[in-house]
Amino acid sequence: MTQVIVLNGRSSSGKSGIVRCLQAVLPDPWPALGVDTLVQAMPASMRALDAGIEFAPDGAVIVGPEFRALEAAWIEGVAAMARAGARVVVDEVFLGGADSQQRWRKALGELRVLWVGVRCDGAVAAGREVARGDRVTGMAASQADLVHQGVAYDLEVDTTHTESIDCARAIAPHVN
Amino acid sequence: MTQVIVLNGRSSSGKSGIVRCLQAVLPDPWPALGVDTLVQAMPASMRALDAGIEFAPDGAVIVGPEFRALEAAWIEGVAAMARAGARVVVDEVFLGGADSQQRWRKALGELRVLWVGVRCDGAVAAGREVARGDRVTGMAASQADLVHQGVAYDLEVDTTHTESIDCARAIAPHVN
Amino acid sequence: MTQVIVLNGRSSSGKSGIVRCLQAVLPDPWPALGVDTLVQAMPASMRALDAGIEFAPDGAVIVGPEFRALEAAWIEGVAAMARAGARVVVDEVFLGGADSQQRWRKALGELRVLWVGVRCDGAVAAGREVARGDRVTGMAASQADLVHQGVAYDLEVDTTHTESIDCARAIAPHVN
Amino acid sequence: MTQVIVLNGRSSSGKSGIVRCLQAVLPDPWPALGVDTLVQAMPASMRALDAGIEFAPDGAVIVGPEFRALEAAWIEGVAAMARAGARVVVDEVFLGGADSQQRWRKALGELRVLWVGVRCDGAVAAGREVARGDRVTGMAASQADLVHQGVAYDLEVDTTHTESIDCARAIAPHVN
Repeated sequence: MTQVIVLNGRSSSGKSGIVRCLQAVLPDPWPALGVDTLVQAMPASMRALDAGIEFAPDGAVIVGPEFRALEAAWIEGVAAMARAGARVVVDEVFLGGADSQQRWRKALGELRVLWVGVRCDGAVAAGREVARGDRVTGMAASQADLVHQGVAYDLEVDTTHTESIDCARAIAPHVN
Repeated sequence: MTQVIVLNGRSSSGKSGIVRCLQAVLPDPWPALGVDTLVQAMPASMRALDAGIEFAPDGAVIVGPEFRALEAAWIEGVAAMARAGARVVVDEVFLGGADSQQRWRKALGELRVLWVGVRCDGAVAAGREVARGDRVTGMAASQADLVHQGVAYDLEVDTTHTESIDCARAIAPHVN
Repeated sequence: MTQVIVLNGRSSSGKSGIVRCLQAVLPDPWPALGVDTLVQAMPASMRALDAGIEFAPDGAVIVGPEFRALEAAWIEGVAAMARAGARVVVDEVFLGGADSQQRWRKALGELRVLWVGVRCDGAVAAGREVARGDRVTGMAASQADLVHQGVAYDLEVDTTHTESIDCARAIAPHVN
Repeated sequence: MTQVIVLNGRSSSGKSGIVRCLQAVLPDPWPALGVDTLVQAMPASMRALDAGIEFAPDGAVIVGPEFRALEAAWIEGVAAMARAGARVVVDEVFLGGADSQQRWRKALGELRVLWVGVRCDGAVAAGREVARGDRVTGMAASQADLVHQGVAYDLEVDTTHTESIDCARAIAPHVN
């Protein structure tokens, strides 16, 4: 039985939409957690360079050592939640590519995980970033090459020409 | 010179994304106002049947007489803002179809308006509604036939297969 | 009959809470509009120095000429909405003190306005700013002296030791 | 060394404000998690009676068996995160009073926990609920008696006449 679904893709690739559709499509209740949950949980002061996570004006995301340490603990927490019986869908941006996946893989251990890559054409992701009205743009572009580098997936979806709900419907049969 | 852009389309048709892209694409600053602005400005109590605006569990939007009266004043306010020199983009759902347009047309009077219809395939809009994670779904479906009935446009865009940014780029040349 | 209620006070003085309580306490529906509504309506690009409105890291709010022009049109719009029959409560920060009030007074013209000053002790406002979790702090402090300078009120309330609901109950009898 | 701070109090008692002030006042970064985090992570469908968590029109919160099961896993996750080295502040509403505390106590096990009760006069909490503009009111009242029943604290604060920042400053010395 699949215990954790991990979706990885750059900012504005449409992961959150897919997650909400998965929650609607899958018969069991799957709480959704992700890097956004953690960022929101952080003190406001952590969103400052050298300590936490910084969203630079050009869209780059810079992660400091303190954030990295808390993120490691957070990943352990998500794994424990799944071990305790909750089926969890995780919405992630692997800024470190294969290294990021390795960190998750180690924490998730024996849990049965479905790894899903969420691709999106760069120009389309950049356009959706504008459509969301974020003040900081360029995040989608700056994360383009990094996030899938060396990452192994059970399944990939591409939101460039496919709706979130259809991506979710493509993923659902792989959840067992 | 275009003074007001009115976008009309059902819920989850992608109007808000187009509006934000228009704001990014057009050289002048265009403040964006719409029915959501008004709903948000309302007292919480107005969101109850017989008085204000009600979002029924099946997604239907029911508008009471008090809301209708305040909406009429709101439309006058938007018109006055445009007359005072601001170029305004309006994000609307013409629940009354041609009647709704007539109300706006009367208030906008001599102002130069670009009327834009925002179409979206029903199944796609319903899927995007799920992707947004709204608790109340069905809004997109319930508004399907109503909102474009008898409405005259200068231009129509269809978000079914076209990104918000590309719709905005198609609209922009019509703004002069 | 009071047609417009204008509340003026610095950031984190508790105006929004009073507005929502007024909406609950007053028998008629009073839509609430304010500078936050306008800022939210603006293109993301307007939140950059020299053009729009900038929230500096020290909490200072710097308003550019383009924002000022749109704000003038916005004020005309609010006035027109009230003339068209809506009773409107306005939540404002008079960054220009008496000059700001003069701009509103001119636009509101013959309308019957209740001017309410919302005071709050500086240290308390600064603490509430932290409690709201805003990343930019110092806004309350930087606006301290400016906003009430030379402004004439029908009524003042002080949120330092008084709850929003009680301030609203103190204001309500002045609305006729 | 304190590893977890648990704040318990009814809705609108001011816990969230205290949490953000604690995050600002304490030297280490304390991520904040709570029942709101979990509710937000849930599928929209879980917010329906018999399954998840329901916010009844009178403000009562009804929790179904599926939500209860996921909540148990969530608590295990928070505990694991603290065991992995993150210091976590938890913002909770013990709808089950002593039973709720017991569930947390069991999961937190050997971790060093600071239990903080957040009190607030009922009428004041009800007023703050109105000031927040929630559509559903009565939540504060319906939770009044339940949440502190039989719960043991290291420390209690009362937000009736004390600002969030001052409550945080009272709590901080107990964190070691």
